[in-house]
Amino acid sequence: MLKFIKKLSKTAGLVPGTPVHIGEERRERPRITVIDYDPAQLEEKQALSVEECFPFKEKNTVTWINIDGIHQLDIIEKIGAAFDLHPLTIEDIANTEQRPKYEDLEHYIFIVLNMLSYEKGAGVKAEQVSFILGKNYVISFQEQEGDVFNEIRDRIRRNKGRVRKHGSDYLAYALIDAIVDNYYVILEKIGEEIEDMEEELISNPDPATLQIIHRLKQEIIFLRKSVWPLRETVSHLERGESKLVQKNTRVYLRDLYDHTIQVIDTVETFRDMVSGMLDIYLSSLSNKMNEVMKVLTMIATIFIPITFIAGLYGMNFNTAFPWNMPELNWKFGYVFTWGLMITVAATMVIFFKKKRWF
Amino acid sequence: MLKFIKKLSKTAGLVPGTPVHIGEERRERPRITVIDYDPAQLEEKQALSVEECFPFKEKNTVTWINIDGIHQLDIIEKIGAAFDLHPLTIEDIANTEQRPKYEDLEHYIFIVLNMLSYEKGAGVKAEQVSFILGKNYVISFQEQEGDVFNEIRDRIRRNKGRVRKHGSDYLAYALIDAIVDNYYVILEKIGEEIEDMEEELISNPDPATLQIIHRLKQEIIFLRKSVWPLRETVSHLERGESKLVQKNTRVYLRDLYDHTIQVIDTVETFRDMVSGMLDIYLSSLSNKMNEVMKVLTMIATIFIPITFIAGLYGMNFNTAFPWNMPELNWKFGYVFTWGLMITVAATMVIFFKKKRWF
Amino acid sequence: MLKFIKKLSKTAGLVPGTPVHIGEERRERPRITVIDYDPAQLEEKQALSVEECFPFKEKNTVTWINIDGIHQLDIIEKIGAAFDLHPLTIEDIANTEQRPKYEDLEHYIFIVLNMLSYEKGAGVKAEQVSFILGKNYVISFQEQEGDVFNEIRDRIRRNKGRVRKHGSDYLAYALIDAIVDNYYVILEKIGEEIEDMEEELISNPDPATLQIIHRLKQEIIFLRKSVWPLRETVSHLERGESKLVQKNTRVYLRDLYDHTIQVIDTVETFRDMVSGMLDIYLSSLSNKMNEVMKVLTMIATIFIPITFIAGLYGMNFNTAFPWNMPELNWKFGYVFTWGLMITVAATMVIFFKKKRWF
Amino acid sequence: MLKFIKKLSKTAGLVPGTPVHIGEERRERPRITVIDYDPAQLEEKQALSVEECFPFKEKNTVTWINIDGIHQLDIIEKIGAAFDLHPLTIEDIANTEQRPKYEDLEHYIFIVLNMLSYEKGAGVKAEQVSFILGKNYVISFQEQEGDVFNEIRDRIRRNKGRVRKHGSDYLAYALIDAIVDNYYVILEKIGEEIEDMEEELISNPDPATLQIIHRLKQEIIFLRKSVWPLRETVSHLERGESKLVQKNTRVYLRDLYDHTIQVIDTVETFRDMVSGMLDIYLSSLSNKMNEVMKVLTMIATIFIPITFIAGLYGMNFNTAFPWNMPELNWKFGYVFTWGLMITVAATMVIFFKKKRWF
Amino acid sequence: MLKFIKKLSKTAGLVPGTPVHIGEERRERPRITVIDYDPAQLEEKQALSVEECFPFKEKNTVTWINIDGIHQLDIIEKIGAAFDLHPLTIEDIANTEQRPKYEDLEHYIFIVLNMLSYEKGAGVKAEQVSFILGKNYVISFQEQEGDVFNEIRDRIRRNKGRVRKHGSDYLAYALIDAIVDNYYVILEKIGEEIEDMEEELISNPDPATLQIIHRLKQEIIFLRKSVWPLRETVSHLERGESKLVQKNTRVYLRDLYDHTIQVIDTVETFRDMVSGMLDIYLSSLSNKMNEVMKVLTMIATIFIPITFIAGLYGMNFNTAFPWNMPELNWKFGYVFTWGLMITVAATMVIFFKKKRWF
Repeated sequence: MLKFIKKLSKTAGLVPGTPVHIGEERRERPRITVIDYDPAQLEEKQALSVEECFPFKEKNTVTWINIDGIHQLDIIEKIGAAFDLHPLTIEDIANTEQRPKYEDLEHYIFIVLNMLSYEKGAGVKAEQVSFILGKNYVISFQEQEGDVFNEIRDRIRRNKGRVRKHGSDYLAYALIDAIVDNYYVILEKIGEEIEDMEEELISNPDPATLQIIHRLKQEIIFLRKSVWPLRETVSHLERGESKLVQKNTRVYLRDLYDHTIQVIDTVETFRDMVSGMLDIYLSSLSNKMNEVMKVLTMIATIFIPITFIAGLYGMNFNTAFPWNMPELNWKFGYVFTWGLMITVAATMVIFFKKKRWF
Repeated sequence: MLKFIKKLSKTAGLVPGTPVHIGEERRERPRITVIDYDPAQLEEKQALSVEECFPFKEKNTVTWINIDGIHQLDIIEKIGAAFDLHPLTIEDIANTEQRPKYEDLEHYIFIVLNMLSYEKGAGVKAEQVSFILGKNYVISFQEQEGDVFNEIRDRIRRNKGRVRKHGSDYLAYALIDAIVDNYYVILEKIGEEIEDMEEELISNPDPATLQIIHRLKQEIIFLRKSVWPLRETVSHLERGESKLVQKNTRVYLRDLYDHTIQVIDTVETFRDMVSGMLDIYLSSLSNKMNEVMKVLTMIATIFIPITFIAGLYGMNFNTAFPWNMPELNWKFGYVFTWGLMITVAATMVIFFKKKRWF
Repeated sequence: MLKFIKKLSKTAGLVPGTPVHIGEERRERPRITVIDYDPAQLEEKQALSVEECFPFKEKNTVTWINIDGIHQLDIIEKIGAAFDLHPLTIEDIANTEQRPKYEDLEHYIFIVLNMLSYEKGAGVKAEQVSFILGKNYVISFQEQEGDVFNEIRDRIRRNKGRVRKHGSDYLAYALIDAIVDNYYVILEKIGEEIEDMEEELISNPDPATLQIIHRLKQEIIFLRKSVWPLRETVSHLERGESKLVQKNTRVYLRDLYDHTIQVIDTVETFRDMVSGMLDIYLSSLSNKMNEVMKVLTMIATIFIPITFIAGLYGMNFNTAFPWNMPELNWKFGYVFTWGLMITVAATMVIFFKKKRWF
Repeated sequence: MLKFIKKLSKTAGLVPGTPVHIGEERRERPRITVIDYDPAQLEEKQALSVEECFPFKEKNTVTWINIDGIHQLDIIEKIGAAFDLHPLTIEDIANTEQRPKYEDLEHYIFIVLNMLSYEKGAGVKAEQVSFILGKNYVISFQEQEGDVFNEIRDRIRRNKGRVRKHGSDYLAYALIDAIVDNYYVILEKIGEEIEDMEEELISNPDPATLQIIHRLKQEIIFLRKSVWPLRETVSHLERGESKLVQKNTRVYLRDLYDHTIQVIDTVETFRDMVSGMLDIYLSSLSNKMNEVMKVLTMIATIFIPITFIAGLYGMNFNTAFPWNMPELNWKFGYVFTWGLMITVAATMVIFFKKKRWF
Repeated sequence: MLKFIKKLSKTAGLVPGTPVHIGEERRERPRITVIDYDPAQLEEKQALSVEECFPFKEKNTVTWINIDGIHQLDIIEKIGAAFDLHPLTIEDIANTEQRPKYEDLEHYIFIVLNMLSYEKGAGVKAEQVSFILGKNYVISFQEQEGDVFNEIRDRIRRNKGRVRKHGSDYLAYALIDAIVDNYYVILEKIGEEIEDMEEELISNPDPATLQIIHRLKQEIIFLRKSVWPLRETVSHLERGESKLVQKNTRVYLRDLYDHTIQVIDTVETFRDMVSGMLDIYLSSLSNKMNEVMKVLTMIATIFIPITFIAGLYGMNFNTAFPWNMPELNWKFGYVFTWGLMITVAATMVIFFKKKRWF
């Protein structure tokens, strides 16, 4: 969580609109792929330089330019120049710690999303994905090569579903939908961990549990931070008045919006569950401690009086005087003492049983 | 709760609008029933194939097609084609983990609701019910055959109430009303369990109580998730501008809306009550522990000093020296010691009584 | 709280608009009283049958029909027919577990309120009061004969205040105002109980306190449920666009609205106070337990070491060997031992004093 | 807090618009002062009877009538008649337990505020101040003579600031501003008490602290109740469309609004601080108890085993048998026993040190 | 936090619009710097008297007047007169405890912000910065000389970025942006402290931790108070209808708005984290105490029974009677006793192991 603050504080003092790559430093050349299609035809190509993409802009077909890797700022800047992007858009693409957001700049719509990944132990990680939706093109920027868009590439290639029949707005929808769908996968994993946790919690609470609850809590705080602005973003896209989004795409966007609401609902449910877990943990702990206390009390209170009796007859009073500890010289003094002890102990046990202490 | 996430994550990566049945796999043929009526006449029939329903569409009467079982996607798809349903509608009918929602697609209104059932022990279960409200027809999809609509079937057959005199919008209202009424039954059962719980809570808190509270909490989290969007759905239906809903039906819808508010109120009240229960549980536990502690303290503090006295006169100092334990050779040493012990113990008891510790 | 759910679940499955009396079964004939007035004249009568009230409707005067008892559905139905009430209105009058609500049906306004009563021990009870406000009449339905409207009857009879000079809308206002004023009386009683509680809480927390706090909490949950929708109801009445409410009555309604806000404020304040009480209770308990623990610790830690010393010199080593317990044969061994014990105990006491443990 | 409920419940059942003085009964004649001014001239007078004020109404100057004491209802009623006040306004002036409120009655604006005073120990007290803002006059009603308006009187007399140059709306603003400024003084005092509390809290938590926290909490609940509606009142005044408030006064009202927001912010901050204090208190208590427990454990666990050893060699087995307690007849048995005891105790201490228990 | 209340209460009773410097008293002359530029030329000057700045106002270029130090009221008043500022604006500049705010006074926009600084130990400190944005000038007031604007000065001088090409509105944006960027630096520092805290929390909770958590909580309360109104301020600036803000600057302001949202998000996240920390702290404490309790119980319950046995055979019954303690005269009595003790202790240990108490 802190990381992103560290990165943002790096950009303090810079000219607004200065693109700064604040992610991990990387060497390899970003991969640029272009898919250009209309209902009838399809062209796919792996571009070596960014300039190869520009001619597609003039064509009447839908063009999807995907850039995997944003660590080479010159590529983003060249695209920015070619597609007439606002300097702040360019900055936001490079500066990978943005909140999900929607910006309508008239000749294009700029969308920033988080792509999440989750590994048990490592926690939730977010990668920024940015989209430029223009009249007949979509440009997508990913921090790393991911496989979440493969399905859509496939659909375009095989002309499966509706994607080839619609314009660039539907393509943008399909890409965002792929990302939101991926959230379900993440949520399932976290949900499973929560469920496992809960079972262990009641049966066997231990300090390690506390740390896991704490970590889960942090992760859900992180998730909420990603997910809430997502809703707003999709809502803007659906309700926005941009001419770039056609009326028949809005039905799909409304569906997408419903999905984001469902994601939020689930995150909130997880939050309630995890915050309930701490209560349960503390209660279980109290229960256990209570049980321990009871046993201590029971044993202590049974033995304290009879130990006293034993101590009593260990006194060394001079038994020559008849008033001094005559019991010691009784014929059945020892037996009497045992009887006394057993009576006392039994009384205690019965008292506890009555009080339902064990 | 998790189940639905698991199911949704299955649909990730699919073409939007692909219907996927994500409920339980089932074999038997879905049951299709048609009721067609106007104030004067009534036709009821059990359809063997979905195609048998289509002729009714053309008639001027109100047609209610009910499909029990959505696991055979071809049926839903055929209906979708015949009634011109949007692909996303078809997907949402099949994909049974939707939030309650309302969608106005002009030539029809699509409504998704949850039908709840509750069994003590098994908890709250939700089944999706979808409605298509068209100009002169209502199509309802249930996951399983249920008996919640029987009452309405009966009313139509016997021409009881207003249902035969109104159009398809009133029928849709009556069906939704039946579902919401059913919520009261569920809430009553949960409410009874909460009340039982509360009585036990104060009189006899034990670790099992904790688990029940935890389960109740989870169930109420689940209920809230179903119930809140329900309100929005009904509100859209009432306030929506669709021409499919006539003005005189809106009075009924407002009444329905009041009912959903009442359901929400009750769920929120339950939530307050259950969250208060944990506090009470912990307080009761503290109380009990406190009582245990007091008894321990009392017994320990009474016996510790007198055990010391007993130990004292068990020492083996050489009583030949006059300064060494002369008490042992006193004539009434033993009696004196008893007196001392009783004095100490009595002082303790009085001290505790004064402090109101028991 | 549960009761009302039980009752509502009874109505599940019925035709909407079916009046069902779900309150207590009662035998006696509902009392029907009519007061008819204008600034100049007054007619008051106890009607034997409901039909006697209908002629007043035609007159130009203001007519107030009050029905005490709604368990005889035929009366409500006859009134419904005579005054052209919507079936749902009739249902809501009979079905006494409605939330406070306002419904504008053009030719009349329908208002449902809760009349509260409170008895220490028995808790808050709510009775439903419904109003029909028409052009020149007000019909009020009470579950039982109450005395809250007597004051208004009196004012009408004696031509006190403004009621005779205004129309039916002012009468409706006066009746609602009487109910809201009655809330202050309830709140005062609850407030007194809370104050009493608070004093006892700090001075003498015991498990019974916990139950009372719990009960107060439940009552305030119940109160909130009654009071929040009340605000909405009065607000609708004031801001509604009905022609039945005249402009100069709105000033009074705004005042009434302020009163409901004040009632809500007070209930919220009570809620804060009661929820603070549990914290205080638990803290007081912790304090007490702490004190008990300290005494135990003090006594135990003082006596444990000196009991050990006593035990030490109770050992039976053969003192024939000079290295074995030579203290036993010292001339002042016993005195020395006492000195040792007192030193140890005093050290302990000083240590505790320093640590401020007592 | 309860007091005001008690008072309000007194008014239940009365004709709306009946002025009832519900504050403390008082004897002395309310003081009536009139200040009449325009930029050029000033007239100030102490009126013996309320009728003396009425001529000023006709003049073109700004007139400020201040009434200290509202326990004589005839005065309020006479003013009401002379200035054409609504009966509900008169009732609200007399009935001193109103929430702050703003009411626009076209020919005048009616404002109710709370003037707060605070004394350590006695807590926050509120006094009602009401204003009637007319075209060329302001009438202010105070429960008691206060000194908060002296500063403004002085400014008018000396023609300091802008007050003489503006109309009655600016005068009303100045008066309200004086009251809000006074809130800062109250907040400072409470703030100081909170700060003092906090320091003591961590260093030396004791049960008395709990009571003070509880009292502070109550006071802040009370403050919030006064302060939140204040904001609404000032906001209405600024944004209201009354012609009585001129455009150039609105800048001042916006400033006043900012001040009320700042007051609310501070009260909310205090609330957060006080509610945090209880957590800290309980944590400190836990810490202390923990420390006590550790010492008990330490001493007990060190002495329990060695006391056992001492007890062991206090047994009276017949040492004539060689297997019975041969240690007693060892030459260095006693020394050996001491060695054993020291070893055991040291092991314990080391074990605790390792576990970091002390 | 309290300081500002103390200061504000100083201003109570003053004429509104009276500038009062309520910050630290300072001696030195405030530094006045002027930068005047258009795309083509640049003039920079350190003014000795405030009058030197006024001629720039008439020029067609953008003028930035920066005043470091607001403790000399005459300077502010002179500027106020020259630039026709409202008296309340002048008061707000001098009175340094304002909330961030935006005020549109038509011929200029007045903005108040907090500049934060943070030092570990000393906590967050806020300094007020005020801006006057006029048609062709920006006047900025700082309490102390700061270095946060140096970067912008540098950009203007070197004609770096867009600042020279735009008007005064862009300059104002750039200055506010510099302040908001600085928030990231503060947040990073606090975030680091929180992270450090968290690690220590679980591994080694001690009472000092509690104080640090408490301090962090206070700081975040303080931060929230600064940050929330900031958002509103920037939002007003962006959405305000002032002609002073040009359309192409609004894109930048929207970006700035996104940044403030991100700052708020982070503060809220910190808040969640810190409030979670207290729970964790208390849980860790409970865990530790639990562990201590277990050891005590274990040792006590093992030794209590065997100490009793030792005490038993320390009794002095007259063994001349065959029923009195015959064990003492058994040949292997001692060995038997040891066996008994070991059996009892082992049983205890096994019992505890089974219960998983250690």
